[in-house]
Amino acid sequence: MDFAETRAQFYIPEHIVYLDGNSLGPLPIAAERRVAALLREEWGAQLIAGWNDAGWMQQPARLGERIGTLIGAPPGTVTVGETLSIRIYQALAAALDRVPDRKVVLSDTGNFPSDLYMAKTYLQRFDQDAELRLVAPQEVEAALDESVAVLMLTQVDYRSGRLHDMAHLTRAAHACGALTLWDLAHSAGALPVALAAAGADFAAGCTYKYLNGGPGAPAFIYVAPAHIDAVQPVLSGWLGHRAPFAFDPDYRPGAGIERMRVGTPPVIAMAALEAALDVFDGVDMNDIRDASMALAEYFIDEVQRRCPQLILASPRDPALRGSQVSFAFDQGYAAMQALIERGVIGDFRAPDIMRFGFAPLYINRQDLTRALDILEEVIRDELWDNPAYKVRRAVT
Amino acid sequence: MDFAETRAQFYIPEHIVYLDGNSLGPLPIAAERRVAALLREEWGAQLIAGWNDAGWMQQPARLGERIGTLIGAPPGTVTVGETLSIRIYQALAAALDRVPDRKVVLSDTGNFPSDLYMAKTYLQRFDQDAELRLVAPQEVEAALDESVAVLMLTQVDYRSGRLHDMAHLTRAAHACGALTLWDLAHSAGALPVALAAAGADFAAGCTYKYLNGGPGAPAFIYVAPAHIDAVQPVLSGWLGHRAPFAFDPDYRPGAGIERMRVGTPPVIAMAALEAALDVFDGVDMNDIRDASMALAEYFIDEVQRRCPQLILASPRDPALRGSQVSFAFDQGYAAMQALIERGVIGDFRAPDIMRFGFAPLYINRQDLTRALDILEEVIRDELWDNPAYKVRRAVT
Repeated sequence: MDFAETRAQFYIPEHIVYLDGNSLGPLPIAAERRVAALLREEWGAQLIAGWNDAGWMQQPARLGERIGTLIGAPPGTVTVGETLSIRIYQALAAALDRVPDRKVVLSDTGNFPSDLYMAKTYLQRFDQDAELRLVAPQEVEAALDESVAVLMLTQVDYRSGRLHDMAHLTRAAHACGALTLWDLAHSAGALPVALAAAGADFAAGCTYKYLNGGPGAPAFIYVAPAHIDAVQPVLSGWLGHRAPFAFDPDYRPGAGIERMRVGTPPVIAMAALEAALDVFDGVDMNDIRDASMALAEYFIDEVQRRCPQLILASPRDPALRGSQVSFAFDQGYAAMQALIERGVIGDFRAPDIMRFGFAPLYINRQDLTRALDILEEVIRDELWDNPAYKVRRAVT
Repeated sequence: MDFAETRAQFYIPEHIVYLDGNSLGPLPIAAERRVAALLREEWGAQLIAGWNDAGWMQQPARLGERIGTLIGAPPGTVTVGETLSIRIYQALAAALDRVPDRKVVLSDTGNFPSDLYMAKTYLQRFDQDAELRLVAPQEVEAALDESVAVLMLTQVDYRSGRLHDMAHLTRAAHACGALTLWDLAHSAGALPVALAAAGADFAAGCTYKYLNGGPGAPAFIYVAPAHIDAVQPVLSGWLGHRAPFAFDPDYRPGAGIERMRVGTPPVIAMAALEAALDVFDGVDMNDIRDASMALAEYFIDEVQRRCPQLILASPRDPALRGSQVSFAFDQGYAAMQALIERGVIGDFRAPDIMRFGFAPLYINRQDLTRALDILEEVIRDELWDNPAYKVRRAVT
């Protein structure tokens, strides 16, 4: 597949090589038109009628279907809205309800901190005998035993890019009677995800990374058909009610995945996300994966050849990595600032990790050649050794 | 105060009289420019750097300050993001933690259903001895006793427009050792709210009604300074952490109101909200209140004179009403559809309530005269007696 066509659908400032789509995807040009139309033609012209006439109320389901096709989820199993931390909380509570006789949530030390914070607080409040058990990523399978209620993992590690084998670990979890909850923040839109085929029970993800939905774009949640009808939502907001506009004094969960809705959907943000998902139309996630692996292989090989000071902090085997590559470098923070100043945008994660994401929808090999030339210069000439680059910014 | 200047800042389609700002405020024209700039100049051009350089990360606090000035909240007590149902859940959990020896959440039957759903589920899961006790709105004060931990009320009833006396009920709650949680969905931007002066403990609200932030605009939460440092957030998301980008494995609550943040803020929606709040610059909430009461008085008087079939379902005393007026009419649903078809947009709430909201920022007396002429015609000529108007829409 030739990605020149998808690349043309993004606005990337001149002289920028953007290798941080694993943190925030770039602007799909069509989002500008789509959001402007939402503002003037829908909100402006239709006012309150937009909820019916412009289909705002069905947007979470409609976008859920479209995300579903990218993550191997059947129709009616994904809804969009709220934030990822909220989605993790909902999914974890639902998963625990399904295994009431067990007390352990198993996760790994590479999981995203917010997932761990949400889980720990939930357990502390809900069941003081319950426990969040953390092991190293490579110890997860061995740590599965009959005490485990839920295996909660982020498929692709936000720091190292390490990729868990979803199908294998889900089978292992099921074999000992546990359910799985997958955070797809760094996998949705980056690689083929096969939730249903893997037998995953619950999943959640954000849409502002590889799905390019925009800063703070809404999250999504997946619940397998085997579970959804039994879920009593922990966050029983009105839009998850079976008939929200009946204003029933008692909560009755909505049909299927609709019950995982909580509050009023973020309509403006949904419009941007819709335009972002259009870019994926006709694109095969396997092609994205192949291209991203090729880009990453080239980048790793060249970095190892040109900048041996940078130590690969991601798995060397592309099959064990997501779509991002990390290098440890003790001057990583300042070096990343030097790169950014020269138009090569990656990011940094403490203590010493330089991250580079490879999104073939808008990044090609020529971009990487340019980035590598600049990286080589920064490292070779110690251009990172500039006091201005060492002042820490709030978000890196 | 002359509101011609604020009126000019909104896009209202020609031939429309918009009396549904209590459900969704209209488009502030500047939001189009502001959102377009956010997309192209911030997200597009700055990419990930927008979190620092465009101030996205501080947006929840910055907009919180601005909303705070409209609701009598001191600096550092309001933050913006998530949805109102989520904010109610957070605030209720925090309030209950502060009164651990009591088991009752007192609310009224006029409270918005989502608040009741969120509260009931929280209590069921986290403390099965706890109880959500509902009384009629006028019985609230008498129902306050030493079993009550939290008095949770919506200040302005979404159906009747009845206005609770926040200062009085807060004093009464405190006198028996209870805390208060106020939902300001129908009061923020509609009338002067004095949270700090009233001694309110917790509050939350949405920004898509009288604040005109757009469909699904983010919610806000207020925590009184006396409580905030003791709050252990029930939804301990990463952006409420003291140092989110330290990626600490353990959650440590952020400073002050920052700890009530949960997930990544909805940056695009925040841009629209920011433009909407600009309209309030230099406007005194007392002037809005005076003008809205004058509009409502005129409307009620004329409806009673011209359409005696419509029975006032709001308090007759303007001091006891928010900014909306409701009438009961057995053909209310169809009559509202007939009005909407003729350009007079109010809404309907089951079983028989026709609602009209009065927002002087963009509605004046001439608008109401036009609306009244059309209403009179619809009722007099039974224009509502049209089968097409009786087909229920999902959202009315």
